[in-house]
Amino acid sequence: MAAQPPARPRRLLPLSLGLFQATLLLFFALFVTYGEPSARAEDASLAAKQLYGTFPLFQDIQVMLVVGLGLLLTFLPRYGLSVLTQNFLLLNFCTQWALVLQGLLQRFHHGQIQLELRSLLLAEFAAVTVLISVGAVLGRTSPCQLLIVAACEVPAYLASEWVIAAHLGVLDVGGTITIHIFSCYFGLGVSKALFGRGRQLLHPKETPTPRSDLTSLLGTLILWVFWPSFVAVLCQPGDAQHRAILNTILAMSASAVTTVVASSLLEDGRLRPGHLQNGSLAGGVAIGAVADMTMPPVAALALGSLSAMVCVLGFRFLTPFLRRKLMLQDHCGIHNLHGLPGILGAVASAVVILVAPKDTSRSPFSQVSPAGVNASEAAVGQWGKRGAGGQALCQAAGLAVAIGGSLLTGLLTGAMLRLPCLARPPEQHCFEDSLNFSIHGQAESLELGGTMEEGALVLKERV
Amino acid sequence: MAAQPPARPRRLLPLSLGLFQATLLLFFALFVTYGEPSARAEDASLAAKQLYGTFPLFQDIQVMLVVGLGLLLTFLPRYGLSVLTQNFLLLNFCTQWALVLQGLLQRFHHGQIQLELRSLLLAEFAAVTVLISVGAVLGRTSPCQLLIVAACEVPAYLASEWVIAAHLGVLDVGGTITIHIFSCYFGLGVSKALFGRGRQLLHPKETPTPRSDLTSLLGTLILWVFWPSFVAVLCQPGDAQHRAILNTILAMSASAVTTVVASSLLEDGRLRPGHLQNGSLAGGVAIGAVADMTMPPVAALALGSLSAMVCVLGFRFLTPFLRRKLMLQDHCGIHNLHGLPGILGAVASAVVILVAPKDTSRSPFSQVSPAGVNASEAAVGQWGKRGAGGQALCQAAGLAVAIGGSLLTGLLTGAMLRLPCLARPPEQHCFEDSLNFSIHGQAESLELGGTMEEGALVLKERV
Amino acid sequence: MAAQPPARPRRLLPLSLGLFQATLLLFFALFVTYGEPSARAEDASLAAKQLYGTFPLFQDIQVMLVVGLGLLLTFLPRYGLSVLTQNFLLLNFCTQWALVLQGLLQRFHHGQIQLELRSLLLAEFAAVTVLISVGAVLGRTSPCQLLIVAACEVPAYLASEWVIAAHLGVLDVGGTITIHIFSCYFGLGVSKALFGRGRQLLHPKETPTPRSDLTSLLGTLILWVFWPSFVAVLCQPGDAQHRAILNTILAMSASAVTTVVASSLLEDGRLRPGHLQNGSLAGGVAIGAVADMTMPPVAALALGSLSAMVCVLGFRFLTPFLRRKLMLQDHCGIHNLHGLPGILGAVASAVVILVAPKDTSRSPFSQVSPAGVNASEAAVGQWGKRGAGGQALCQAAGLAVAIGGSLLTGLLTGAMLRLPCLARPPEQHCFEDSLNFSIHGQAESLELGGTMEEGALVLKERV
Repeated sequence: MAAQPPARPRRLLPLSLGLFQATLLLFFALFVTYGEPSARAEDASLAAKQLYGTFPLFQDIQVMLVVGLGLLLTFLPRYGLSVLTQNFLLLNFCTQWALVLQGLLQRFHHGQIQLELRSLLLAEFAAVTVLISVGAVLGRTSPCQLLIVAACEVPAYLASEWVIAAHLGVLDVGGTITIHIFSCYFGLGVSKALFGRGRQLLHPKETPTPRSDLTSLLGTLILWVFWPSFVAVLCQPGDAQHRAILNTILAMSASAVTTVVASSLLEDGRLRPGHLQNGSLAGGVAIGAVADMTMPPVAALALGSLSAMVCVLGFRFLTPFLRRKLMLQDHCGIHNLHGLPGILGAVASAVVILVAPKDTSRSPFSQVSPAGVNASEAAVGQWGKRGAGGQALCQAAGLAVAIGGSLLTGLLTGAMLRLPCLARPPEQHCFEDSLNFSIHGQAESLELGGTMEEGALVLKERV
Repeated sequence: MAAQPPARPRRLLPLSLGLFQATLLLFFALFVTYGEPSARAEDASLAAKQLYGTFPLFQDIQVMLVVGLGLLLTFLPRYGLSVLTQNFLLLNFCTQWALVLQGLLQRFHHGQIQLELRSLLLAEFAAVTVLISVGAVLGRTSPCQLLIVAACEVPAYLASEWVIAAHLGVLDVGGTITIHIFSCYFGLGVSKALFGRGRQLLHPKETPTPRSDLTSLLGTLILWVFWPSFVAVLCQPGDAQHRAILNTILAMSASAVTTVVASSLLEDGRLRPGHLQNGSLAGGVAIGAVADMTMPPVAALALGSLSAMVCVLGFRFLTPFLRRKLMLQDHCGIHNLHGLPGILGAVASAVVILVAPKDTSRSPFSQVSPAGVNASEAAVGQWGKRGAGGQALCQAAGLAVAIGGSLLTGLLTGAMLRLPCLARPPEQHCFEDSLNFSIHGQAESLELGGTMEEGALVLKERV
Repeated sequence: MAAQPPARPRRLLPLSLGLFQATLLLFFALFVTYGEPSARAEDASLAAKQLYGTFPLFQDIQVMLVVGLGLLLTFLPRYGLSVLTQNFLLLNFCTQWALVLQGLLQRFHHGQIQLELRSLLLAEFAAVTVLISVGAVLGRTSPCQLLIVAACEVPAYLASEWVIAAHLGVLDVGGTITIHIFSCYFGLGVSKALFGRGRQLLHPKETPTPRSDLTSLLGTLILWVFWPSFVAVLCQPGDAQHRAILNTILAMSASAVTTVVASSLLEDGRLRPGHLQNGSLAGGVAIGAVADMTMPPVAALALGSLSAMVCVLGFRFLTPFLRRKLMLQDHCGIHNLHGLPGILGAVASAVVILVAPKDTSRSPFSQVSPAGVNASEAAVGQWGKRGAGGQALCQAAGLAVAIGGSLLTGLLTGAMLRLPCLARPPEQHCFEDSLNFSIHGQAESLELGGTMEEGALVLKERV
């Protein structure tokens, strides 16, 4: 007998999504156009050159978000279709939603919003925060609940990013503070408000199998390869971008090796797949705030090593502690991958600013990059005025704003998810694709799933 | 006891393929050279720049065809090795075959054919049509039969493309009409002529499992990410290419969201993996004919939404209807992904031409792109002469030529596949890798496969 | 009861790796900096242009090494996590190690080593040799043993590469001789010294399953797609690079088709997955030495066809012969993929040099590429002086140096691996992830794994 969930929440998803699509179409019809075509041949040639510079990096980032991140989440052995799909749906929903909000807030010139590849890129960055945040609550939430998270987080991120980047002038080219830290604490806030009243036992279907660990590791490797593009895409072309790419590669290479060291020390000579899947990426999270700054290469290596260590230790000690003491669920360990290395990176950015020679930290040709898009030129200008100490304080202030703002809005969002009309999936059907998909043989599978013990399940999955 | 297929067809594949390779070598030895190296430094620098512009897009397309499309077809749970291999083999065979034919037909300058990256790209487009078409008959055909399809379809495509693009001057930068519609109806023609006399029951091994659905969805995601490169690679660099990329991303993003809406409305709140695997890509098929035209972004969104809707509805209602009434097999549902959205896109191109302001629809710098390659400049020139109404009529004529020509040649090809020397695989061994591969433990597997019922199979596959 | 390996080798891995990381940090802190930022705007613009030219190819190569090569090795059905991880760890370890050695040996200007993307690329090439070599001994070695191989092979490769490229002036833009042949015979030397005293039986867990063959084939396809970037990345921009890309694509396309021909002739009409996984790539190995030379396209096709044939025949006849007569283990068949096609490519390079017109074999604008990096300009200069016959002799000498040097150093390295402190994993736990990973349910799995017969294992894996 197939499980028959109540009808109302089932209709909620297509109806609300459909309504959103209709609104989006209306908004685009009224307000959004493409930019005027370049009148002169030189402008056209410049446009082509900029496109060739940005588009390959944009594609790399798309692969990261759609394929890499999706696969990383498939460590849940019976929930693979669902995580791939939810990740994909949320990316598209949030990008569209961020395009609307960004259009309304920032780009209202002459009553028309001009769309270009760069606006899509910035909208995707807003989507990334949601994709990270939902990692804390994945598997025990319905698609509708995830859409609510997305609907709330995108505006919260845009506001926080505006304060941190444009107002405080924080330097953060790779999104360590604005993206990773914000999304981590937003997700933890949601999880605390949603699940934090009682202790959740580990669900038997939450345990990865060797095969699901393999696809998840594949996701890690894809993210690892393309991460430099994510960090460097908004850098100024030339030396700064070159430096950002090299620093990211160094940091992530150190992370990969250090993760193996740390994990096998903790696990008596063996490795834990979860450590590897996350620790290898920790360097990429931490390097974002300092990637384009003038610092010796050893700093990138050290930061990568340190963040991997912190990430693995977090999985081993902090996550169980938080679950026990604060009753805080964090299914994917986003606090270990995005929170701790993010804080490390933010602190590192303040240190580098205090130590590094100020005047050469950016390459000088600001005419190449469009003015004011991510406010980094403005920030560099302010840095010149306020001095190294002032700028380091600003980095700290940015960190505080990101953590405080995200926790607050996350808790509010999580409280909203407790609304009765957004029924959570019943515990025995969590982490199970058949909840979201009508797949062949689902009836049998649901019944089996309910009666199977953990050991037997894992053993069978292995075979 | 392993199944022992008759010896003659077994030898047919290597012998005919080997003969083809020998002919290819002879043809290349006699006629094909590389272009002269650039004499002046400026030319060399320009050549390097063009290569940097095209090569990343070319690689994206290679990933789509070899990895993405191959994985999309692995929804057949016991036929994964075969579909990946057949897809890969057909891509290479058709590209080589198209190089020969294109060389003979179009590029016979000075007795020598000059090979460049662009010729490879155009040859791959011919191969794409075959990769799509065989989706209709996959699993119930032998590799030899697929090679016959390839051998017949490539020249048919080249002729049809020549009529549509060069003669009628149809605007179709992303191949909606010339590639997608042509290949869809060619494949349906083959299927009708080959299988259309009796009703085929659903084969038990045709049913996807959650795991095969997962790899297939992965293929979809890879195709989704790189599709903009496919649509934009032949555009003129600069504004038109930028616009084509943005339009494709918008259309496919709308498709992804709309597919979820449509599928969960039809399936009572759940999703069907097959809908998602195909519907998310429908926008990319439809946008091809209008991607570089001057139209507001909302048109791309609307087209993407609409085509996803049509695709999902096609899977739900049209495919069973065609199977019942016309006895038409379409194993991969190519009519829903390529046929219906393709027709929608062709109609959209006529509408945009009638509505849009004519003179700004292309960026003006025609000197950048090599003259006459895909005839679009000629088409724009003709459009200027014949007016919007005339051009819209031409689009309709192109659509008619593509459907008529492909159905006719497809039916003829399918009839040829019924030749006795090309024995079809026996029904009980269809959709089974051990037919094409000598794999360990195949004997047991074949016996088991024959006696297993569908339910037990699916259940075991799931575990 | 879980298997408890002895404690000492277990600690060896993290301690030695940790020590290496600390040394690396110290070395970088003392000696390595980034280059000075470009002072003038034109230099900055040139730097940006070079970055845009190289970075997409660099990313392609990263995907090949991390994802493609890793997946190719997952044909071992119960060892997937281990091969992905070992491949990833070795890549990072070797790149860092090669950076240190290259820095010490070649780039010691002004007491400081300047890091740039090109140095990373060259260091990765050193890592590639290790990744190939370990294919011969994979599954029966501990991670510590693999690290010893890496530590010894990187300096041996750098010395051999210096002799072959800089001293002998061998032309080898795609690394056929310096990378593929060297790594193949190094690996065989290691295998002979390590395992060559007794005959090893085929381990039951060594047998691929259809599912592990599928992921391995996926790895092949990824490598196949991105191989042109690997061959062409060090070419001079412009015509030579364009030619290298086209030649590589042609050779690999011919390989793919010929592999199907050869395999199905040998296997009575069916294909063997192992042939396909390796034969399709043979053309890429062979073309490396001649890719940028002036030769007609038919030569690339013929070379690709021939090398695929040689590779498939090697798997069918030579590997069993070597195992029987020389007691030589080659788990992944690296001799068939890298050794035989590599020798073919080296011979082809001598033939092309003797036959081709000398003066046009390189495009003339040497000012674009940084002088002396891979010594190819120097080589071309020498070629001019020493004539075609002399250059062909040099190619032969380079081949001899690569084979002789690698066999010698490989045998020495293998002998070192027999040290008692580097205990090999016990035979019954070879090819088993639970040896390296602490995974859930491992106790049961180890016990089961020990008692299962091959047939039952394969059958269950299939289901």
